[in-house]
Amino acid sequence: MPGDPAQIPLAMLMIFGSTKLLAEVFARLRMPAIVGEILAGFLIGPAVLGWIAPNSVISALADLGVLFLLFRVGLEVKTSEIVRVGGTATLVAILGVIAPFFLGWGIMAVWGASRVESIFVGAAMVATSVGITAQVLASKGLLDHKASRIILAAAVIDDVLGLLVLAVVSSVAKEHLNVLGLLITASLAIGFTVLITKWGSAAAGKLIPRVQARLRTGEVEFNLAMVFLFSLALLAVHAGIAAIVGAFLAGMALSDTVGERVRDLTHGVTELLVPFFLAGIGLQMELSAFQNKTTVWLAVTIVIAAVISKLIGCGMGALPLGWADAARVGCGMVPRGEVGMVVAQLGLTMGVIPKAVYAVVVFMAVATTLIAPPLLDLSYRKVKTGLCRRTV
Amino acid sequence: MPGDPAQIPLAMLMIFGSTKLLAEVFARLRMPAIVGEILAGFLIGPAVLGWIAPNSVISALADLGVLFLLFRVGLEVKTSEIVRVGGTATLVAILGVIAPFFLGWGIMAVWGASRVESIFVGAAMVATSVGITAQVLASKGLLDHKASRIILAAAVIDDVLGLLVLAVVSSVAKEHLNVLGLLITASLAIGFTVLITKWGSAAAGKLIPRVQARLRTGEVEFNLAMVFLFSLALLAVHAGIAAIVGAFLAGMALSDTVGERVRDLTHGVTELLVPFFLAGIGLQMELSAFQNKTTVWLAVTIVIAAVISKLIGCGMGALPLGWADAARVGCGMVPRGEVGMVVAQLGLTMGVIPKAVYAVVVFMAVATTLIAPPLLDLSYRKVKTGLCRRTV
Repeated sequence: MPGDPAQIPLAMLMIFGSTKLLAEVFARLRMPAIVGEILAGFLIGPAVLGWIAPNSVISALADLGVLFLLFRVGLEVKTSEIVRVGGTATLVAILGVIAPFFLGWGIMAVWGASRVESIFVGAAMVATSVGITAQVLASKGLLDHKASRIILAAAVIDDVLGLLVLAVVSSVAKEHLNVLGLLITASLAIGFTVLITKWGSAAAGKLIPRVQARLRTGEVEFNLAMVFLFSLALLAVHAGIAAIVGAFLAGMALSDTVGERVRDLTHGVTELLVPFFLAGIGLQMELSAFQNKTTVWLAVTIVIAAVISKLIGCGMGALPLGWADAARVGCGMVPRGEVGMVVAQLGLTMGVIPKAVYAVVVFMAVATTLIAPPLLDLSYRKVKTGLCRRTV
Repeated sequence: MPGDPAQIPLAMLMIFGSTKLLAEVFARLRMPAIVGEILAGFLIGPAVLGWIAPNSVISALADLGVLFLLFRVGLEVKTSEIVRVGGTATLVAILGVIAPFFLGWGIMAVWGASRVESIFVGAAMVATSVGITAQVLASKGLLDHKASRIILAAAVIDDVLGLLVLAVVSSVAKEHLNVLGLLITASLAIGFTVLITKWGSAAAGKLIPRVQARLRTGEVEFNLAMVFLFSLALLAVHAGIAAIVGAFLAGMALSDTVGERVRDLTHGVTELLVPFFLAGIGLQMELSAFQNKTTVWLAVTIVIAAVISKLIGCGMGALPLGWADAARVGCGMVPRGEVGMVVAQLGLTMGVIPKAVYAVVVFMAVATTLIAPPLLDLSYRKVKTGLCRRTV
């Protein structure tokens, strides 16, 4: 059982301290603090200083951090507000999947990659990682804005679509397309999402107070909220979608039910663990693959394509709301974060993409995550922040 | 990077859910909820159901949980109150080290164990694990009581003494007593503890508000408190004592400086992670070594000796305060928890104690931890809980 007793305090000090320090530095340079926090991980990680390497404990704390972040964001959002923008969000999500997928595929084909390799990179460019955008919007009190609602709803739909794209792409790689299996996957993911969105709030509103009235030990409401959160996150994974989507749906379902106390306690966990999520993204970065000039050019091209395809794809979907909101939605969907890395990792494991291309995808995931916050700041600049709700 | 995406939500659900469920059941049976939480780990762990095994992530969350628990307890305690009871606490700690050490040694010698094996078991019976007692006292709002102050102060001194006992015992096992090394170890541990206790509070009171005034990003006070906490925990480990003692000293040093906000945010982390600490103790239990009847008898004898030696040893030190407080102090020092296990693990690694004796020590650590809460409840029964402070 006992490992190095210094391990936990040292890792906490390095990651928490460095993220907060760089957040402060970036804020003073009038740049988004969140970019500083991601770069902190890059700096102390294997790419630069090598003080700390990704390990199972850090990645567990990071997973937990983003789970709580999305739960906390869900708590700020009412289901009705999400359902109201459902139509626009669906269009945003669909166009935001098609554009990067085919652009990525095309670039890789031109670069001379095989068909399977090309579609894997396309698939890795599909999924938006909503954690970064959620953190930026929440910390600026912008979750109430209509464009923000569309981003959140579109990110949920995007995750379901990403799952289907990945399933199809994996079938192509294995040269075996199981249509029935795909249909089951699709219905499970869509069924879970629709079910929780539609009845989660009502069910939680009836269930939680009733159970709460019968329990007496400790922080009953917080404990029930946690069990609800972990259950939905787990169910989401079994339905094939991301745990954080389950966490967001759990938060949304509870937003009318739970009180200030649960929000405060959750906030403590978020404050402590979100730095691990942010630094964890930077930690993944490996520069050793970029000694080859061709790889550098490919990486730059893929990053530009990844940003533009979401900006235009998602922006087009939101155009009926006007240019300003379309730009906000486009910027909000840019970060790829951990989701793209998971797809690339799968391709690496299946032996269909080489290490250099894996490094390019990881670079794209980190770079889009760094580019999005300043773009978001810019696009939301004219929104009155005096009307901000309490920051998350 | 990506492991099984279900791992985190599943582990969280199983540990958090089972501890809270058993806490509720135990509270209804009018037994201490904390015993239920420890037994939850025992039930879902390898000993009974085998749903979950100890792993690096769970043990990291447990370490973090007990770190925050002791920090939180430190925040409730003023340095002056601890220093005032310093004399009594020192006597309590010294007698509470001598009694179990020689009793354990004697029992093992009678049982026919070798000299080195006997003194290792004696050493494993020395160190009090203050986490359990702190959680019981904090959750009942009893931290303000004089006996509680003595327990906390004595636990800190006990940790320093335990370090010295372990150093001497290891030297004996290696048949090489380095007196200079021992002196350095002792001065480092004592120096760190005295330094932080004496000047930590004044230094934090000057430093924190000054730094705070210059920073502007996010929850500044909470961030500074976290950096302070992790730094002292790390320094404590390097000074040879437990990280949780550093966390306690950090909390105490900050108790006059930080506001309600930091306490609330810290409370969220504690609520989420303390169940991992408690269940983690139960998870360590292995029953397979107890198929041999002699081992069972040895385990029972050692547990009785472990309880009685602390009750009498520590109780005698606190006798000047009267029988009631002496009993409270004695009960509060009974739990051994993780500290005894670390010593036993070291003995196992050095090859001086066999596996069966290791299992006996682990059993003793868990059993004393389960026995202490009801004893504490009993001994504090007559203390008016109407005067309780807000629970931690």
